[in-house]
Amino acid sequence: MESGQKAVTFKIGLLGYGTVGTGTAEIILDPSGRNSLLKEIEIAKVGVRSLDKPRSPELPVGILTTDLESIVTDPEISIVVELLGGLEPSRSLILKAIANGKNIVTANKAVIARHGEEIYNAANDAGVYVLLEAAVGGGIPVIKPLKQSLGVNRIQTVIGIINGTTNYILTQMTEEGADFGEVLTEAQKLGYAEADPTADVDGYDAADKIAILAAIAFGGRIKRDDIPCEGIRKINATDISYADDLGFVIKLLAIAKANENNDSLQVRVHPTLVSKEHPLANVNGVNNAVLVEGDPLGQVMLFGPGAGKGATASAVVSDIVNIVGILLTNNTNE
Amino acid sequence: MESGQKAVTFKIGLLGYGTVGTGTAEIILDPSGRNSLLKEIEIAKVGVRSLDKPRSPELPVGILTTDLESIVTDPEISIVVELLGGLEPSRSLILKAIANGKNIVTANKAVIARHGEEIYNAANDAGVYVLLEAAVGGGIPVIKPLKQSLGVNRIQTVIGIINGTTNYILTQMTEEGADFGEVLTEAQKLGYAEADPTADVDGYDAADKIAILAAIAFGGRIKRDDIPCEGIRKINATDISYADDLGFVIKLLAIAKANENNDSLQVRVHPTLVSKEHPLANVNGVNNAVLVEGDPLGQVMLFGPGAGKGATASAVVSDIVNIVGILLTNNTNE
Repeated sequence: MESGQKAVTFKIGLLGYGTVGTGTAEIILDPSGRNSLLKEIEIAKVGVRSLDKPRSPELPVGILTTDLESIVTDPEISIVVELLGGLEPSRSLILKAIANGKNIVTANKAVIARHGEEIYNAANDAGVYVLLEAAVGGGIPVIKPLKQSLGVNRIQTVIGIINGTTNYILTQMTEEGADFGEVLTEAQKLGYAEADPTADVDGYDAADKIAILAAIAFGGRIKRDDIPCEGIRKINATDISYADDLGFVIKLLAIAKANENNDSLQVRVHPTLVSKEHPLANVNGVNNAVLVEGDPLGQVMLFGPGAGKGATASAVVSDIVNIVGILLTNNTNE
Repeated sequence: MESGQKAVTFKIGLLGYGTVGTGTAEIILDPSGRNSLLKEIEIAKVGVRSLDKPRSPELPVGILTTDLESIVTDPEISIVVELLGGLEPSRSLILKAIANGKNIVTANKAVIARHGEEIYNAANDAGVYVLLEAAVGGGIPVIKPLKQSLGVNRIQTVIGIINGTTNYILTQMTEEGADFGEVLTEAQKLGYAEADPTADVDGYDAADKIAILAAIAFGGRIKRDDIPCEGIRKINATDISYADDLGFVIKLLAIAKANENNDSLQVRVHPTLVSKEHPLANVNGVNNAVLVEGDPLGQVMLFGPGAGKGATASAVVSDIVNIVGILLTNNTNE
């Protein structure tokens, strides 16, 4: 380098190289015009199930491995990016990575909603970070603003449209006057809904996410299994049409609400009549939004693409850069 | 303290104790249920023009002073919070505070839009932080997400409704079919517009703010005087009604846009026809919103109260807490 200083490079390991993983690599391998810390990051290892599949972007030989354990124990790797999804082996790999002193970036709402406390405690003990911006709201900055900028407020409510699939289905039902079943089939064809749509349409995905947001906004422990959860299967075209006549739209809302004395908390997921004047009423299609109400702030809404390769990868990489920034500051101070 | 550790307290000095200053004190003096770092902050000095005015919240004797210089040179103070507004003496006091090793939090868009480069350079040399979340978008987290979470994207556009007064006036004109003059008079009575409304209605305030956002989003230097700026004085009820017929609303937009090759930048402020389907079309009254478009993210919109005591104080205090967090980390590492 010009100044004669040696570049500090932070090696990261990816667990998983599906949609979000390749999106993450695309950003890191093409850093020009982006946050300059990207140039300090090197993808050292990528864990996949099979080495035979063609992949884009292609990675140099020797980076792909099917041995995920070798990534979380690699002494050269300082950040492990978990993009496997699901509970296991994600939980075990994250805990092993933490035990090996790695910082964690994850997009996995399920593992954080169910095992967040165990993971955070392990990270505290090890003195490492666990960042999860991509776990809620795709590319929308939600977790970090809630932890930081908005955290000086006494938070009263967090309300989210945080499942893109159900919001897409409800939007289509509203625009086409169609029933749930038809729109679900169409959404599955378009790739907006999974073959098994349960996690989305029954509200479980939204419940995972509001559990995470509530724990951050209100502190303490949210028991995921205690969150009452009603999905959108029972909504039909007639409901939506009646709501429309009365000045409302139907949205699947995930709600976390403190009572007036701020000493108890309600967390729930269910279809809700939303007045057409309300900021959440115009959040349509696969977009997500999180509305935070606090004292003395008032209402703030964060809106954007709740899913998709680029949006989710943007959140993953912002977390990686965030950790690199902290590590660099600490290095400089040592 | 229970653990036997001595509490680290960070002394801050406020320059100005008007609406935002008292809002800031209200949050800091009532920390329960908020970010725990608030308990580490002590308001050590508050600079005001006169000591005779009654103030709420009341501050202990000896904290109020008319000697603003004594605050920026006080060796015990680590963060100076500039809430005076305007160019001078704000600029000189900020520079003197920086020269004395203080970190700066400011809500002053004018001084940053005109003297940002000088102030940032001085801060870099002195190794201190200058944070300004409250300068744009009131309580909405905008500056920090733009610098951090969104910065891994190649930013293409930043479009803001970032002046609450003009947005209030345009909203009222739209809802009441009234002309500019009547609504301005009404807004002045309600305190939503100043006696001299020039800075707001001619778009200068929005130009200050988009200069700041553009410098952060696109890097480099934005010459404030080069920003073409047209206000809302010429808009009348007929314009709004024609727009409505065609499916548009009229909004005062502040726009910063890179060209396709990302090698040149347009920054401007003017009334704009916004399609009713566009997310910015529903940003009404004194609310603000900033829409950021980036690659690979797509569109994200940050929405909320663009002004007001509580909202602006929320942003100021979030910056103070942010600096305290960094100072604590650095102390721990030393």
